[in-house]
Amino acid sequence: MAVGRGPSGIIHDVDGIRLSAVKAGIRYENRLDLVLIQLSEESKSSGVFTQNAFCAAPVVIAKSHLSSHNPRILIINTGNANAGTGDIGLQDAFECCQAVAERNEVEIQQVIPFSTGVIGEKLPVNKIVAGVPEALDRLDKMNWQDAAMGILTTDTRPKLISKQIKVADNFVNITGFAKGSGMIRPNMATMLSFVFTDALIEKETLDKMICELVDESFNRITVDGDTSTNDAAMLVATGKSGVSIADLDDSNRKQFDVCLKSVFQELAKELIKDAEGATKFISVVVKEGRDKEECAKVAYCIAESPLVKTALFASDANWGRILAAIGRAGLDNLDTCSINIDIGSVRIVTKGNIEETYTEEKGRSAMERDELIISVELGRGNIQETVWTSDLSLDYVRINADYRT
Amino acid sequence: MAVGRGPSGIIHDVDGIRLSAVKAGIRYENRLDLVLIQLSEESKSSGVFTQNAFCAAPVVIAKSHLSSHNPRILIINTGNANAGTGDIGLQDAFECCQAVAERNEVEIQQVIPFSTGVIGEKLPVNKIVAGVPEALDRLDKMNWQDAAMGILTTDTRPKLISKQIKVADNFVNITGFAKGSGMIRPNMATMLSFVFTDALIEKETLDKMICELVDESFNRITVDGDTSTNDAAMLVATGKSGVSIADLDDSNRKQFDVCLKSVFQELAKELIKDAEGATKFISVVVKEGRDKEECAKVAYCIAESPLVKTALFASDANWGRILAAIGRAGLDNLDTCSINIDIGSVRIVTKGNIEETYTEEKGRSAMERDELIISVELGRGNIQETVWTSDLSLDYVRINADYRT
Repeated sequence: MAVGRGPSGIIHDVDGIRLSAVKAGIRYENRLDLVLIQLSEESKSSGVFTQNAFCAAPVVIAKSHLSSHNPRILIINTGNANAGTGDIGLQDAFECCQAVAERNEVEIQQVIPFSTGVIGEKLPVNKIVAGVPEALDRLDKMNWQDAAMGILTTDTRPKLISKQIKVADNFVNITGFAKGSGMIRPNMATMLSFVFTDALIEKETLDKMICELVDESFNRITVDGDTSTNDAAMLVATGKSGVSIADLDDSNRKQFDVCLKSVFQELAKELIKDAEGATKFISVVVKEGRDKEECAKVAYCIAESPLVKTALFASDANWGRILAAIGRAGLDNLDTCSINIDIGSVRIVTKGNIEETYTEEKGRSAMERDELIISVELGRGNIQETVWTSDLSLDYVRINADYRT
Repeated sequence: MAVGRGPSGIIHDVDGIRLSAVKAGIRYENRLDLVLIQLSEESKSSGVFTQNAFCAAPVVIAKSHLSSHNPRILIINTGNANAGTGDIGLQDAFECCQAVAERNEVEIQQVIPFSTGVIGEKLPVNKIVAGVPEALDRLDKMNWQDAAMGILTTDTRPKLISKQIKVADNFVNITGFAKGSGMIRPNMATMLSFVFTDALIEKETLDKMICELVDESFNRITVDGDTSTNDAAMLVATGKSGVSIADLDDSNRKQFDVCLKSVFQELAKELIKDAEGATKFISVVVKEGRDKEECAKVAYCIAESPLVKTALFASDANWGRILAAIGRAGLDNLDTCSINIDIGSVRIVTKGNIEETYTEEKGRSAMERDELIISVELGRGNIQETVWTSDLSLDYVRINADYRT
């Protein structure tokens, strides 16, 4: 089950990026499960990784390699997360990098590993190493669909977003793909995201940009508050378009930033639309707060409340649950008499009390939509923040209670 | 559905306490829905209330009355929470107090109101006022079972616990009852708990005691992290046994404290055993932490993780989910290589890696029990903390998605 049809449209190649996906038989036969992404020599790369203290072996290696060398190849396997595997896991991740490096004349530290799949099982290194030659042979600038398919585990569809903008008489391309049914699967671990552009961006700028971008996209989605041991998001700039971000005027720079942010946000939203058991895509918008932090606090309290989420599943405009979630967000001196709540275009709560014109029928009709907005006005400032989430359905419980057996 | 059979055993009267429950027809006909509890003149009372910013009208009135006067009557109605009802709600709660006060020769401020039920509907004051005379007539020291039944809403069974201890040649009685299917029902709002003893306890001591007691009982249970707008816990000491807590020697005082704490904890556990859709009662014990705060953080991360809870429902010893929940608890410098995890008597994780002797079969057999203990050793201190919780079942979603319709 997923909300909507998934992304479509033209996929723009990114000069300097070549990709491939092959069937290495890591967990299942006849399934694309090993992806290589080759970056041209001058490319700059930045990554952010899970905050989970139990981070997986490939995350440890990836962070170490990124901090000392300029990446040339990303290697991603599905079917096995190589997490909870101790020192052997580190050795296994390293061996995968080595297999790529020695056939491609780059240093081991220029290969960045990513794994996603079941936790606690030994990585089948032999299968991965055996798949590397074919994957290297197949590298091509056109293979975006295959790569987007090849990183999936239990996702029901690929998430591939591509944009092109014209700045200063040049075209700049941004193409990226992601996986994960929310950040919600510590066992079939992982949210992974890879975004590429042919703009020229200095490493220092790139490092700053990815933190801000992730903060406004992948860090603004939640399914159930769980984060995995393997989450990673990469941003790579090849520079091949000849357009240097540093040289753009304000207007063109803004255009680029907006476009890049929209790629990150659309990928993040696609994860939620394909979240486990999701029947609805919900934007929780908290306005009129004093700062971003308190707006996000309230938005997360609503978005992660199992009671709000089950009401959303039932299309029940159970405003008492939204109210109670706001009330427990822990805001200092919250004046409940200044709060308004809307679902879509239906006003439900005005100044902390039920809106006089509200009827259950109006509420239900607003809740029945596949995609809806819960809007909260705190009435104490002018800052706003948005969090995207899914509902809590019977299928969510079924999927998570059943899938290992 | 509920875990186990519920409490049984002798119920000890508490000298100085008289109770009654009548059918006032507040939401349903032919159901005990109005409870009065009369406290003898010298009784001391303390209460703690919901931290939710949207606290209900009766909570506002109760806190105000408690702060200025010595309570003589508690009035509790079910079927309507009188929450989200604005100024009219305050007036309604006040009118209920007035109806009791004028027929009982106490001041209005000596009557403490409690409401539990649906949020956002006007309290049917007339029905409550009409029920008060009969409720006053029926006041009796024996009516514990009726009172425990009369405060229930969607609970499947009453929660009534009673203990008697002998200190310094006197008997001291402690009897209490509670309601709420976890603290999880902001719409059919409320956890309520009332505990009474005939020990003599000064008001100042009582205020301190109830905070500590609630912290080790009702604040250590969680179903889904949601707290209601009406939660309240009361502790009343009538002093009629002639045993003054202040005069007890260390050994007797300890005996009393342990007994009182066990009443609070047993009531709290009963709430979890009767939680919505619960098929299991789980104690999450986090040991070897540096302080209580970090132990509780880890315990709550495990206890509130929807992925852990669905695995518990499925009796799937999905240790990767427990590991990931520990990892995201945000502990400074957590050394994952010092962590051990047991389910019941089965060791699952040793020093951060899967235990060599572990098998899926052992894990499943440990998980299949109705009541089980998840034990985590952090290996960085000597403090421990326990949180009690239930699983996340299909019935949880069904109940919360369906019950308003």
